[in-house]
Amino acid sequence: MSIECSPLALPFPALPAIPGVTARVARARYKSWDRCDLTFIELAPGTAVAGVLTGSRCPSPEVEWCRKALPLGEARALVVNAGNSNAFTGNRGRAAVEAIAARAAAHLGCRPSDIFVASTGVIGVPLPIDKAEAGLDNAFAAPPCSWEDAAATIMTTDTFAKGAVTRAVVGGKTVSLIGIIKGSGMIAPDMATMLGFLFIDAAVDPAFLQAALGDANRKSFSCITVDGDTSTSDTVLAFATGSAGNAVLAGDEDDGADAFRAALQDLCHQLAQLVVRDGEGAQKLIEITVEGAESDASAHRIAMSIANSPLVKTAIAGEDANWGRVVMAVGKAGEPAERDRLAIRFGATQVARDGLAVEGYDEAPVAAHLKGREIEIGVELGLGEGRATVWTCDLTHGYISINADYRS
Amino acid sequence: MSIECSPLALPFPALPAIPGVTARVARARYKSWDRCDLTFIELAPGTAVAGVLTGSRCPSPEVEWCRKALPLGEARALVVNAGNSNAFTGNRGRAAVEAIAARAAAHLGCRPSDIFVASTGVIGVPLPIDKAEAGLDNAFAAPPCSWEDAAATIMTTDTFAKGAVTRAVVGGKTVSLIGIIKGSGMIAPDMATMLGFLFIDAAVDPAFLQAALGDANRKSFSCITVDGDTSTSDTVLAFATGSAGNAVLAGDEDDGADAFRAALQDLCHQLAQLVVRDGEGAQKLIEITVEGAESDASAHRIAMSIANSPLVKTAIAGEDANWGRVVMAVGKAGEPAERDRLAIRFGATQVARDGLAVEGYDEAPVAAHLKGREIEIGVELGLGEGRATVWTCDLTHGYISINADYRS
Repeated sequence: MSIECSPLALPFPALPAIPGVTARVARARYKSWDRCDLTFIELAPGTAVAGVLTGSRCPSPEVEWCRKALPLGEARALVVNAGNSNAFTGNRGRAAVEAIAARAAAHLGCRPSDIFVASTGVIGVPLPIDKAEAGLDNAFAAPPCSWEDAAATIMTTDTFAKGAVTRAVVGGKTVSLIGIIKGSGMIAPDMATMLGFLFIDAAVDPAFLQAALGDANRKSFSCITVDGDTSTSDTVLAFATGSAGNAVLAGDEDDGADAFRAALQDLCHQLAQLVVRDGEGAQKLIEITVEGAESDASAHRIAMSIANSPLVKTAIAGEDANWGRVVMAVGKAGEPAERDRLAIRFGATQVARDGLAVEGYDEAPVAAHLKGREIEIGVELGLGEGRATVWTCDLTHGYISINADYRS
Repeated sequence: MSIECSPLALPFPALPAIPGVTARVARARYKSWDRCDLTFIELAPGTAVAGVLTGSRCPSPEVEWCRKALPLGEARALVVNAGNSNAFTGNRGRAAVEAIAARAAAHLGCRPSDIFVASTGVIGVPLPIDKAEAGLDNAFAAPPCSWEDAAATIMTTDTFAKGAVTRAVVGGKTVSLIGIIKGSGMIAPDMATMLGFLFIDAAVDPAFLQAALGDANRKSFSCITVDGDTSTSDTVLAFATGSAGNAVLAGDEDDGADAFRAALQDLCHQLAQLVVRDGEGAQKLIEITVEGAESDASAHRIAMSIANSPLVKTAIAGEDANWGRVVMAVGKAGEPAERDRLAIRFGATQVARDGLAVEGYDEAPVAAHLKGREIEIGVELGLGEGRATVWTCDLTHGYISINADYRS
């Protein structure tokens, strides 16, 4: 099947080189396609690493490998396979990850635990070790590639390559944070997987990097949803080389810590948005803000209840100002809410207040807002100070076509 | 828009009269349609009542009214409005319910709290009191109607009228339990609503009826899902007239209590299945059984995670034996599960065991099973004795068309 580029796509940005980070790509031919599908990213000795991994109870062996290696805090390379997720493959899947790590470690003269591995694609088929090893050998011999090539090589059925960049001043040095990500594409018969990789030239202590990434994740990757389904392979890794020459950032009292946290948050936010913009069948990007909840966590759960509601998402697809479905989604979230305090807006227009439609409600400005590509829904609960913003896309015939009509 | 009858529809069964229960229908014209949309069901004095109501935090005033009246345990009439749910309408919505109850109570010479009211349809528009009162007056004057007419009058965009019957022997008497239900139809711009009404000729104490209905609900209405969205108006009410002449059933030690509970369970099961069979856009009925969980509740949550997964539901729509998506849905449920003990079957065919595809897995019998109308998915967790079965339908272009393409 051929899928057109998402109408919400953004062009790939100019990403700076990060000294100590070298990307190479190769054809492992995990599927019968003629494209690069193996990415090998070499990292200078001393690179710090942090990560967030899927909460799935049925994770891929790659996820288990990364979970074990992360506490060591150091990385020398990242290997990403596209076309085969290696998930649910038992001992043979574990053996494939071990073989990849061993081969890359031998090439670099480092420990296998310094090699991070992620895979995305078909489930239930062990990653073929011979193809992985041959692909790796080809990658070792390949010339360095651009960030855009690397971002394209980790894609499965994403419709555009995704990257982002931001900067911060840390201890008097300007540091760069860049990232590439793939997600919300689909290879039947498979679930979408989000894989994101961040590369930073600042010197950052792994524990501090982990804390900052965890916080940034909570307000970015954990705030997006396409269909409420969670992959067995979701992985976000951050690598910090230290080449910028700043004094190592190790705690919130250090000079530039706030700026670094803000920049990391910005980068994660940008990357998360790109995934929603490539949501399967997406025609509209939807931002949902819930305020006045009893807590931020409660606001988040209500916002995700709205964002995952098929009825809300189909209404937006139909450009229908169906605020009743928002009420429904608030009501079913199971969180504290009082119908008669609830207020709802679409874009800048208040549609309901105090539990009923506003007097003289005029649908015209709402209808105009809903014709756009970027839709805002605001909910005010009137109970407390809790707030959260999440992002999703609309639910369209394109989603059904991608996931039901076409078989591998 | 015109919607064809669901391919999963069943014919309306022959339902016996329940002495003391008289249904009448009328045109209140809540929408600009020429069909009966108000149902008035008179109940003999002394009729016991029990009910289960939506857990939504934003319920309709009808739901609040029923919640308040249920503990009194007695009912003299049920009024059902179709075409306007009266939800999210503030004080004006409450006034409409009070007016309906007052008028019906005056007609019957009973307390307003003996009148039960349910409404389904457009949200955010107060139910017009003048239409409701005129409709009621017409209904009082109308001749009794058939159960099929009553079942058709409570429909919104359901594609077929739904009813069921079962019997039990209680204290030496054969008693009849019948029910009508509507649900999973949709009136844009609105959410689907499930309204179910059971009529029983046995004499049953209200507290025992409530306990039995609660148990039956947990294994029937609480085990179905079309899209994971919960209406603000979901209501199931059971009325027992006592006309069968049995000694009042008041506890589990009474003669026939087990048979009565089993029959009530059977009736609720039948009615719940009918709702899934009329799921929006449904082409296939899917039964999901989870076994070997740590508890029944855990099994239920995992089964609902599978049943609500858009990726599983689109795979079934595409007749795709995509067991990887079932693994994904088990993994994301957040319940105890061990990947390497997991076994999955489609129909009678085992596809995965011990966390990977079965040796020599042959997709042919699975593909044949998936071409049918009734699909079975089995998951064995290998952890304990917990089990649950839930029902859903596939997710098709029809769902998108009903909920996005057509505006009111």
